[in-house]
Amino acid sequence: MSKPAILDHPVHALIAERWSPVGFANRSVPPAELRSLLEAARWAPSAYNEQPWAYIVATREEPEAFAQLLGCLVPGNQTWARRAPVLMIGLARTRLARNDKPNRHALHDLGQASALLSVEATARGLQVHQMGGILPGAIASAYDLPQGVEAVTALAVGYPGDPDTLPDALAARDASPRDRAPQRAFVFGAAWGKSWE
Amino acid sequence: MSKPAILDHPVHALIAERWSPVGFANRSVPPAELRSLLEAARWAPSAYNEQPWAYIVATREEPEAFAQLLGCLVPGNQTWARRAPVLMIGLARTRLARNDKPNRHALHDLGQASALLSVEATARGLQVHQMGGILPGAIASAYDLPQGVEAVTALAVGYPGDPDTLPDALAARDASPRDRAPQRAFVFGAAWGKSWE
Repeated sequence: MSKPAILDHPVHALIAERWSPVGFANRSVPPAELRSLLEAARWAPSAYNEQPWAYIVATREEPEAFAQLLGCLVPGNQTWARRAPVLMIGLARTRLARNDKPNRHALHDLGQASALLSVEATARGLQVHQMGGILPGAIASAYDLPQGVEAVTALAVGYPGDPDTLPDALAARDASPRDRAPQRAFVFGAAWGKSWE
Repeated sequence: MSKPAILDHPVHALIAERWSPVGFANRSVPPAELRSLLEAARWAPSAYNEQPWAYIVATREEPEAFAQLLGCLVPGNQTWARRAPVLMIGLARTRLARNDKPNRHALHDLGQASALLSVEATARGLQVHQMGGILPGAIASAYDLPQGVEAVTALAVGYPGDPDTLPDALAARDASPRDRAPQRAFVFGAAWGKSWE
């Protein structure tokens, strides 16, 4: 299944064809593919090149590790994410390595890394569904997170499922239209709220 | 000039060839190209599809607007960013539109939008240099930012410059090697600090 963006201006296919399925195919992702996704994250830019991102990874080939990670999602996400072949947690080091001060850009830069990971996934026929609905306290305990490390997102990774073979509820969610505000709602010129022309 | 990443695992050329120059060519960027960059940002994923990002844009074709935006960077960034043909500010709406509660993922999702913008730039022969070094107070005042909107980054956009025609200091910075920690420093399995295998 594909679900391209409805574009007002042309963009590269890797951008237009990235989307966030809830229905994944029953197909494993080779570890070498995952290494390439993580390599894309690795080369993201970051403030002071601090590279504040980290990922915890579990695949269905490791049932205990997968179950532990799945249990760190809010129940509404567990319902569909249990069918993904790969789950990850996205984490941020929130203090600067250089001076231990708060890194205001830590979550921003994790977002950049995860976005590049998702582009690399699209290039390989995979898709990534990122989630904010996680249980940070459970994650901190389960994975023994040190002070200054925050769990921020989870990521489900896999090949999009065939709507004809997905559970109806997931197929229906994946069939819903994609929606974004127009550029005039967020691209400004002389002042906030004044469209850039 | 190009400056591809030194890869441990293969990634798509648009990821490997994205980098952050300080030296830009003396060449304008057509507005239609910028619209495509912003369209890539538009289609980023976000928590609750809140799309918390916004951009303020100024080009050298608008000298007053450009000077105003340039003045919102820390002096160290002004020295090189003044030569970029396009400057932007990246902003985040830090409260959820749905219920006015804090959006923990606002900066994260701005980061995703800016990363996709930078990939689209690479696809068009452009590069983006993002900066954390901005003057948020000056920006809030200059652009009349409402409560709940934060300036987070600036972005310089343009065609990379020919090192032979750049000022020596900029050419030297652009010639410096790219550097990232290996995956074992940020990809974990059973617990924080334990490499995923």
